[in-house]
Amino acid sequence: MAIQTDTTGTAPLEVQGLSVEERIANLEQEMLHLRENAPRADKATLLIFSSDLDKVLAGLVIATTAASMGIEVTCYFTFWGLNVLKEKRVYGGKAVMERMIDLMTPTGPDHMGVSRMNMGGAGAAMLKHMMKGKKVLSGAEFLHLAKESGVRLIACSMSMDVMGIRQEELTDGIEVGGAAAYLGEASRSGVTLFI
Amino acid sequence: MAIQTDTTGTAPLEVQGLSVEERIANLEQEMLHLRENAPRADKATLLIFSSDLDKVLAGLVIATTAASMGIEVTCYFTFWGLNVLKEKRVYGGKAVMERMIDLMTPTGPDHMGVSRMNMGGAGAAMLKHMMKGKKVLSGAEFLHLAKESGVRLIACSMSMDVMGIRQEELTDGIEVGGAAAYLGEASRSGVTLFI
Amino acid sequence: MAIQTDTTGTAPLEVQGLSVEERIANLEQEMLHLRENAPRADKATLLIFSSDLDKVLAGLVIATTAASMGIEVTCYFTFWGLNVLKEKRVYGGKAVMERMIDLMTPTGPDHMGVSRMNMGGAGAAMLKHMMKGKKVLSGAEFLHLAKESGVRLIACSMSMDVMGIRQEELTDGIEVGGAAAYLGEASRSGVTLFI
Repeated sequence: MAIQTDTTGTAPLEVQGLSVEERIANLEQEMLHLRENAPRADKATLLIFSSDLDKVLAGLVIATTAASMGIEVTCYFTFWGLNVLKEKRVYGGKAVMERMIDLMTPTGPDHMGVSRMNMGGAGAAMLKHMMKGKKVLSGAEFLHLAKESGVRLIACSMSMDVMGIRQEELTDGIEVGGAAAYLGEASRSGVTLFI
Repeated sequence: MAIQTDTTGTAPLEVQGLSVEERIANLEQEMLHLRENAPRADKATLLIFSSDLDKVLAGLVIATTAASMGIEVTCYFTFWGLNVLKEKRVYGGKAVMERMIDLMTPTGPDHMGVSRMNMGGAGAAMLKHMMKGKKVLSGAEFLHLAKESGVRLIACSMSMDVMGIRQEELTDGIEVGGAAAYLGEASRSGVTLFI
Repeated sequence: MAIQTDTTGTAPLEVQGLSVEERIANLEQEMLHLRENAPRADKATLLIFSSDLDKVLAGLVIATTAASMGIEVTCYFTFWGLNVLKEKRVYGGKAVMERMIDLMTPTGPDHMGVSRMNMGGAGAAMLKHMMKGKKVLSGAEFLHLAKESGVRLIACSMSMDVMGIRQEELTDGIEVGGAAAYLGEASRSGVTLFI
């Protein structure tokens, strides 16, 4: 869809009767509005819901590549995705179910299975072996690179609350925020993905 | 990427030879085009493909939070996602396979399993128990809230046709539309997710 | 959120002291920037990560419907999604693990399972049977239609490298590109989905 610029100079209805100065001022205000509010090609917000190694890797590759291209990147981790950020388990003071979830979920990408053909972990081991053979970074290395590249990492506060995960269990440099924090970033982003 | 505004007043090539009036009119027309066509930060379109309780909850939390922030939200339900909208099963006049799918798919979010560690429904029961403990709404309550908040809910017509699902099986207040209806909404939305 | 156009002609702070000519030239430059950089409603980029028949079909329906509406569509295939493009297996010169993955992954959409209730392929067979009954195209036919409709198809180079997949195994008319190629398309697209 090409932008049609009409060189005959016919003005839209709304501006008839306005002075040149007023029309320019209106354009400037609307442009200011777009600059401050419209989705931007140079901003990406990835919602990481999954804790499958293959999906998480896809997300981290996109995030770090985008950052290297000068795109401002936010990754928002919710539900199982919180496990990407998990570094250790702290059991003290947790309810029984919270401890159970702790025990059954991975601490960080290097302990995750893959979404298909995991075969009790053999699939994940195979993928990691093949990536290493091709000199591709591991999940934990990609996460580190994301931090170094200035990717903003936010952990979902509601998921943390429901699953009983505490900030001291997460890796350093993580913000905690709710769905509104996610939407504030996503609504201005050209690229928005649910992974 | 900061917008570079050039205060030296050098005009792009295309406008040379045009009068001030013509240049303003062209800008106004292009601005009108953007206003009526460009993706908007205050519009979000979620495609719900999944019938996993955890994914559906994530989608409904985003949808209702966005609506509370003044964002115009559309949720488009396709394939397994149609089960989010399902309220009852109507077998009469259905083919054998359609009845089988009916029997094997949930009616509404409160009857869904989770995408990981479902363990024959124990995982879903655990999640629901933990959400209740933290005073978080249930899936059905979030769906109700979405309706109350003015979220537009569209059921995919092709999926309904292929799976033999009829509108009388769905909850009230649902529109039925095809992929073109989805794209009409999504193409103007800052936030677009496949869940 | 309605655009507020202020007919009183009050100019933003930054333009005070500039001539009418300079203000118009600034607006033209900023408009040119938007035209060349902002996300567009008439552009969609789908990242196909999955090789579940149901998800792939949803992606191809969206892609071909969008193309029929005049939307410029790119599909980027990564990880398991590469199997959508696979037409044959070439074992010669592959490492053992690469051959194993070859053997265990489908060649093209018509050999894929579904994400739920697959029951050893029965679910996929059922879905295909029901789609045929409703005169809906098959996965392979949708892929063909996508090509005919001018949808740009890109295979992820890093995934091909890691999994040992070669271009000669893929269907015709496929480009190969990295995450930067994906981001170049996605960042200008109103619709971006991870499928």
